[in-house]
Amino acid sequence: MIDFITLCDYVGTFAFAISGIRLASAKQFDWFGAYVVGLVTAVGGGTLRDIMLNTTPFWMTQASYMIVSGLALLFVLIFRRYVIRLNNTFFIFDAIGLGLFMVVGLDKTLTYGFPMWTAIVMGTITGAFGGMLRDILINEVPLIFRKDIYALACVFGGFIYWICLATPLSEAMTQFVAAFSCVLARVVAVKYHISLPVLKGEEQNR
Amino acid sequence: MIDFITLCDYVGTFAFAISGIRLASAKQFDWFGAYVVGLVTAVGGGTLRDIMLNTTPFWMTQASYMIVSGLALLFVLIFRRYVIRLNNTFFIFDAIGLGLFMVVGLDKTLTYGFPMWTAIVMGTITGAFGGMLRDILINEVPLIFRKDIYALACVFGGFIYWICLATPLSEAMTQFVAAFSCVLARVVAVKYHISLPVLKGEEQNR
Amino acid sequence: MIDFITLCDYVGTFAFAISGIRLASAKQFDWFGAYVVGLVTAVGGGTLRDIMLNTTPFWMTQASYMIVSGLALLFVLIFRRYVIRLNNTFFIFDAIGLGLFMVVGLDKTLTYGFPMWTAIVMGTITGAFGGMLRDILINEVPLIFRKDIYALACVFGGFIYWICLATPLSEAMTQFVAAFSCVLARVVAVKYHISLPVLKGEEQNR
Repeated sequence: MIDFITLCDYVGTFAFAISGIRLASAKQFDWFGAYVVGLVTAVGGGTLRDIMLNTTPFWMTQASYMIVSGLALLFVLIFRRYVIRLNNTFFIFDAIGLGLFMVVGLDKTLTYGFPMWTAIVMGTITGAFGGMLRDILINEVPLIFRKDIYALACVFGGFIYWICLATPLSEAMTQFVAAFSCVLARVVAVKYHISLPVLKGEEQNR
Repeated sequence: MIDFITLCDYVGTFAFAISGIRLASAKQFDWFGAYVVGLVTAVGGGTLRDIMLNTTPFWMTQASYMIVSGLALLFVLIFRRYVIRLNNTFFIFDAIGLGLFMVVGLDKTLTYGFPMWTAIVMGTITGAFGGMLRDILINEVPLIFRKDIYALACVFGGFIYWICLATPLSEAMTQFVAAFSCVLARVVAVKYHISLPVLKGEEQNR
Repeated sequence: MIDFITLCDYVGTFAFAISGIRLASAKQFDWFGAYVVGLVTAVGGGTLRDIMLNTTPFWMTQASYMIVSGLALLFVLIFRRYVIRLNNTFFIFDAIGLGLFMVVGLDKTLTYGFPMWTAIVMGTITGAFGGMLRDILINEVPLIFRKDIYALACVFGGFIYWICLATPLSEAMTQFVAAFSCVLARVVAVKYHISLPVLKGEEQNR
């Protein structure tokens, strides 16, 4: 039997891959291209984290991430018509993935001896960088810079983690509370249309 | 005298650089910009591979890749008018580069002790990632996601390599057969207009 | 008291971040998005350098780069109306940052035992890659490929460094002369509208 963390990891990977595959399909990518975009969305953040931690990217030693991304492609191919109706489900899965990836990235960075602020940044990168890469691959301005609370939900969850460290909470409980805070921040922000103010700029002459 | 592998390496680097420089020139890049795009097309895949293998990028210790890319720029500058007529030649050179880069990436990854499936992925990245970076730099949707068999030819060649390992073929022969299979898959796909089906997507509201 | 090099480092980081934040604001990014683009512009080049040198990215152990980028965001938010009038000041700051980042990257690469030509390339990457990432994030064709002398000013400064090594100049003096040459090349090129010729290309059919 797989444990709860591993299950969340698979759910998050699946949801992230689905988001990449759906956006790729809107751009007329072929199957292979859609698979790559899905995979990059799912593993991109953790890969940059591991490269900056100077360690082997996590997916290179465990095939499950490539397999789950492949299942996501199959899912979109087979249930094409029903995918839109599942928007809310995918949104929740995606938020769970965000929270979990953030905590995994934060924890791993602490293990390597970095200070807490670095770990929060790395947790945020783990959660949000994949979606940014996805948008670069489909040649769009990254969505996370313009809409909703996304990366900021990771930062929020990271601060909650920090606060929990000052309490007598167990490690597992701290991880759960931090991930849950991140998910909650994301869900509340989308439900109540909370977003950051846009930075009004002068017109630029390039 | 340089050996056959080194010759193929130079030919591939030259062809990859030419493809970058030509696309950059269509976008009105200046000479330096075109050189950078050519260089990134040629060494981008191997650089990402080496970063993920946690080793020094190959071009940092050997100047030949930067020199060959410079020669490619010179070539385009001097033979501007004749470059189009050479389309078929460049296509073959490019395919040879793809096959060789794939095998080099696969071999190097095996040397570092990774399993075969990781090596096939890394071989594919070595062959195809440079062209993806090129398209990002010129602000286009990466071509490899939408047209022809390209990265998939690397995956195919990688599987042939795997199969050859179960035969009594020598290492050199295995490398040759795998690279040749990749080149052949690429050439046949383009000649007979074989491509993957497009993933038809719902309209996305972003 | 902080020393002169550190001061220049802060000034350069601030100017690079400002350039990212301003371009992001022209694209209607939210505050967080603008901050990320500013930060990436400032630390992107050094991060790629450190990843390729196989060492820990510099900003992961020193919070000042994230803080200075935050101050740049505050500055743009508060002095929005006056920012345009400061164009010339920012241009000089940016050029100083370019020169300093180039020398820092070149020096660090030499420390790791690489040959001089690798160090010049890495110095150029340190100076110019952040601006390239910035343009990719805002979904534009990178400016450095099309306009002005920018990365080439780094290459020029790097060659001056090389020449200085053959003279009895002290290390500090060599660094200063090289950085100053880079700044000068940049300023002169912009003031007198010197730029590289555009590579006229055939029309491409993609």
